[in-house]
Amino acid sequence: MSGIAPTATPVLPIRGRLRPVGLGDVRITGGFWAERQSVNAVASLPHIEHWLEREGWIRNFDLAARGDLAGERRGREFADSEVYKFLEAVAWEIGRGGDPGLESRFRSVVRRVAAAQEPDGYLNTRFGGRGQAPRWSDLEWGHELYCVGHLLQAAVARARTRPGADDGLVEVARRAADNVCETFGPDGVTGLCGHPEIETALVEFARVTGDDRYLAQAALFVDRRGHGLLGDVEFGRQYFQDERPVRAATVLRGHAVRANYLAAGAVDVAVELKDAALLEAVRTQWRATVARRTYVTGGQGSRHQDEAFGDDWVLPADRAYSETCAGIGSVMLAWRLLLADGDVRYADLIERTLFNVVATSSSTDGRAFFYTNTLHRREIGSVPDADRPSLRAAASLRAPWFEVSCCPTNVARTLASLAAYVATADDEGLQVHQYLPGTIAHRLADGPDLRVTVLTGYPHDGVVRVRVDSDDDRPWSLSVRVPGWATRGATVTVDAGTRPVGPGTVTERRVWRRGDEVVLRLPMTPRFTYPDPRIDAVRGCVAVERGPVVLALESVDVAGGGSVDDLRVDTRQPPRVVDGRVTVRCRRIRPREDEWPYRGTPAPPDPVDADLDEVALVAYHAWANRGPSTMRVWLPTTD
Amino acid sequence: MSGIAPTATPVLPIRGRLRPVGLGDVRITGGFWAERQSVNAVASLPHIEHWLEREGWIRNFDLAARGDLAGERRGREFADSEVYKFLEAVAWEIGRGGDPGLESRFRSVVRRVAAAQEPDGYLNTRFGGRGQAPRWSDLEWGHELYCVGHLLQAAVARARTRPGADDGLVEVARRAADNVCETFGPDGVTGLCGHPEIETALVEFARVTGDDRYLAQAALFVDRRGHGLLGDVEFGRQYFQDERPVRAATVLRGHAVRANYLAAGAVDVAVELKDAALLEAVRTQWRATVARRTYVTGGQGSRHQDEAFGDDWVLPADRAYSETCAGIGSVMLAWRLLLADGDVRYADLIERTLFNVVATSSSTDGRAFFYTNTLHRREIGSVPDADRPSLRAAASLRAPWFEVSCCPTNVARTLASLAAYVATADDEGLQVHQYLPGTIAHRLADGPDLRVTVLTGYPHDGVVRVRVDSDDDRPWSLSVRVPGWATRGATVTVDAGTRPVGPGTVTERRVWRRGDEVVLRLPMTPRFTYPDPRIDAVRGCVAVERGPVVLALESVDVAGGGSVDDLRVDTRQPPRVVDGRVTVRCRRIRPREDEWPYRGTPAPPDPVDADLDEVALVAYHAWANRGPSTMRVWLPTTD
Repeated sequence: MSGIAPTATPVLPIRGRLRPVGLGDVRITGGFWAERQSVNAVASLPHIEHWLEREGWIRNFDLAARGDLAGERRGREFADSEVYKFLEAVAWEIGRGGDPGLESRFRSVVRRVAAAQEPDGYLNTRFGGRGQAPRWSDLEWGHELYCVGHLLQAAVARARTRPGADDGLVEVARRAADNVCETFGPDGVTGLCGHPEIETALVEFARVTGDDRYLAQAALFVDRRGHGLLGDVEFGRQYFQDERPVRAATVLRGHAVRANYLAAGAVDVAVELKDAALLEAVRTQWRATVARRTYVTGGQGSRHQDEAFGDDWVLPADRAYSETCAGIGSVMLAWRLLLADGDVRYADLIERTLFNVVATSSSTDGRAFFYTNTLHRREIGSVPDADRPSLRAAASLRAPWFEVSCCPTNVARTLASLAAYVATADDEGLQVHQYLPGTIAHRLADGPDLRVTVLTGYPHDGVVRVRVDSDDDRPWSLSVRVPGWATRGATVTVDAGTRPVGPGTVTERRVWRRGDEVVLRLPMTPRFTYPDPRIDAVRGCVAVERGPVVLALESVDVAGGGSVDDLRVDTRQPPRVVDGRVTVRCRRIRPREDEWPYRGTPAPPDPVDADLDEVALVAYHAWANRGPSTMRVWLPTTD
Repeated sequence: MSGIAPTATPVLPIRGRLRPVGLGDVRITGGFWAERQSVNAVASLPHIEHWLEREGWIRNFDLAARGDLAGERRGREFADSEVYKFLEAVAWEIGRGGDPGLESRFRSVVRRVAAAQEPDGYLNTRFGGRGQAPRWSDLEWGHELYCVGHLLQAAVARARTRPGADDGLVEVARRAADNVCETFGPDGVTGLCGHPEIETALVEFARVTGDDRYLAQAALFVDRRGHGLLGDVEFGRQYFQDERPVRAATVLRGHAVRANYLAAGAVDVAVELKDAALLEAVRTQWRATVARRTYVTGGQGSRHQDEAFGDDWVLPADRAYSETCAGIGSVMLAWRLLLADGDVRYADLIERTLFNVVATSSSTDGRAFFYTNTLHRREIGSVPDADRPSLRAAASLRAPWFEVSCCPTNVARTLASLAAYVATADDEGLQVHQYLPGTIAHRLADGPDLRVTVLTGYPHDGVVRVRVDSDDDRPWSLSVRVPGWATRGATVTVDAGTRPVGPGTVTERRVWRRGDEVVLRLPMTPRFTYPDPRIDAVRGCVAVERGPVVLALESVDVAGGGSVDDLRVDTRQPPRVVDGRVTVRCRRIRPREDEWPYRGTPAPPDPVDADLDEVALVAYHAWANRGPSTMRVWLPTTD
């Protein structure tokens, strides 16, 4: 293993049904995610650092240190947070044993950040300087507490991967957190941040430092929200979840990133303070959100105007917003609920979101990103400028950077810390949640030292072999997750016995010997997926999935370059694999003359122009890597 | 008749296939639109004047006259235009013989406006004053030329309804127009306005004044657009149609009001300058827009974020934007094309848009308005504040006023001038396009003096009786329009002969005697309407229409107060009329437990909770007049 602490993980609750297994104990050795981690380290992190310098967002700290901010500072009000998220990503990357040169780059940026901190701990390049608006003067939009939150998360990553390192980041974070507690504590300003994030960060910082003052402050922020303490804004207070207390809400709503970050923080607070009612409130919100407000990709947020959840069942495929950061927020929330409750449906959503939102955001070269992840692109858009930040909602091709560039750094920190989301432990043994080639170790308290190797080509193939590498005379439990999508055909083999299994947790408890194996076989035949009839936007359509991967029809795969909107899928023939690619049988309809599109009779069967036979699909996460194209995930059927 | 000039009409082209018949020659004497004109005069105009005063938008002119604007001016950058649109509405209302008290109110506001005009003709309360941004310093968002455009249109209305009146409005407009020509003429600033409107206004002002300089300036503005002369904005230059020249565009795109106003101005220029290529470009854009980007209501614009057209076929019912002003812009454009081409499909769209967008905007009492006209409301929203301007996109109940309050004044001027859109003439005779009880007169050049009375209960019933009131020995043609929706069952009766007729124009040419009649009988049986299968958002749904009126299912009509989203229409039974209301046969589906909403098998037929038998529908234009409710126009079927 890497030699770092087993507790090297972003989330380390004091209690819960399951315990996380950290980066020190999980090593990803190959496959889908190792490849992405490698691209993240080799390409994305330098790319991000380049743009942070180029846009002047790191230099803002230099200016602040010199007192030169007025008129000189660049970037939006939350630009500091991108520097912190970069630091967090680098801290995790160092933790997992990345490029040795990273350590000096990390320290260099930390020094520049630290130099900008005010004597009382306040740290923000947008407010409070000479010629700037006063500190905390715009809680609705200013993002000051949000920025501190990301500073704390960077410090958490550092403290858990290099405990006792002398770079000073943890001390900077502690002074900033103290300043927050002094300013917004019980005797301070009765305020909160327009963008939740400080809540979850303060709880984790309390876990790292052992200082419960930060936890109390987080609880205060959670409880303050929903009472209209923030000013009203164009999008209404629902936008930042201030229209209703967390405990009273029944579903996630408003800005989808804000909503998930807040819910994650509420779970953290609830777990630490044994607040069962608060936990149950978030659990209820999660269930409703997943059932009625989540795309098949796991994406969340359907509205461009306010980057927000729509009403129940409003899940348009075209112009789906599905912000990358909302997907990451959803993973953060689901992971916390998984640790609290142990229900693998949370891990199901994490898997779906990782493969279909997080993996979709980055280009294969790791130097361009989707901010939004639409499920249907009707027109070939303009190619993003390689040399200029794009507007945040650019959804044509991936862009190198954004004016609001939250997603690239968020993807980077998530990929660098991905090992932390693979497995958990409890007093009985080990649970493997995400399937990738690697090793997992865990020492049970007063129990055996558990070690397993996972051998798999997942998600390319469905065989997941969990091999025991340790010997102990005491029994322990080894659990694997049968994903929710594997409703039929999954089996588990232990020793010579194979049995069918359905979605949920499969646990084997026994004395394990080195070389023993649990083999999970998942049905990887591509399949049609049908939407709930309440989702108006995709009625009469099917999606195609293979394992946890959502597929898409991309115009570059359509013979003759036709529109993806002119194809109709014949569902009588299931999707199949031809030459390694999933194909569906399609017919093409002929474009009509322009006329009034509403008629007194049902549209006659569209005239068939050609039998295209088989059209190859592409993994949704891989689309838009072959030049400008159109695309759809939900395919109208010939029915 | 009212004694005002037959040319009292907003649009008076120099040539074209058809000539408008103005307010002086058309009198609306009863029925659906007379009722709305009456409410407009009695309730809406005083309501609007009250809010214009209350919000300080008229007072801005007083402040400007005193040089006190800095820091004192209220309202958005286009607030002046609301005052001008109010003046235009009042001018038409005076023209159609409204309340005698209106004249002094009109003159009073004109005096206050006139007092604010600068010596060189510049007139705007937002720019150029002491402490304000300089004139023309923000062409993208400043709306200065837009405001002048509405000033000109008010002056046009005045000049045509009270020629030679000594209130001075026409002179104020002339000085403002001269200032525009001097500033932006061939030797001036190569600029244009972010919001088209000045183009169509300048052409009409040229028609009123006979001064072709205004026409030339309008042509210049039309040709300047599409070359990136405006700065880039968050929504892209397409937002204000500056990404592509008018002549090169193939469809309306970007902000839906801007797009229609620009196209209307382009038709005006094309007609005056005999620019066949320009006219054909707009004609092509109109056809594509109506075929692929228009709601069944005639509404246009599907995106909240930028109030814009979506891509082809993106017509979501929920969160449909369908701004009232875009509907009015569409009527403006279609009317100009009808005059140019004579194709009654333009009149079809006008009818549809009047009944289902313009009539929908106002509450029955005329004191509240929809800014957007969604086709599906899933959740009961908050009730707009009766005492405060609402946000522009408030779509819950109609609101008394908006921070961006373009729609109420636009509806007011449209209703007050509605008689101008009823009929046209050519050298052969008279064409009746819109059906309402009233009288139409027209003197053909060197020909007979034509007079007809229209007797009808339309759209409540489908019998339209056009009775000739004049005698002349020379033959002339009387044409009626068979609407596009009347694909079957329409008949025309002349003398004793009745014959079936299909959509289009039906013309009878003969010598007409007083008392002769053409009776058009339109099929008013309610009917299901099916969407083009390319419109993903409403696949598997039907709408219900009766005549030109789109119907809706509103929750207040659902027994037991169930959700409109839980009903499925059985299309095997056509809609029918029960006790004067249109009903459909529905079944209610049972809500499901919260679970992952995407499955490996087609959803089983939804469990039926109850046979509701007949559910009554409401005219879409009448919904949301009975308290908060949910609503849908497109109804999923049981198929």
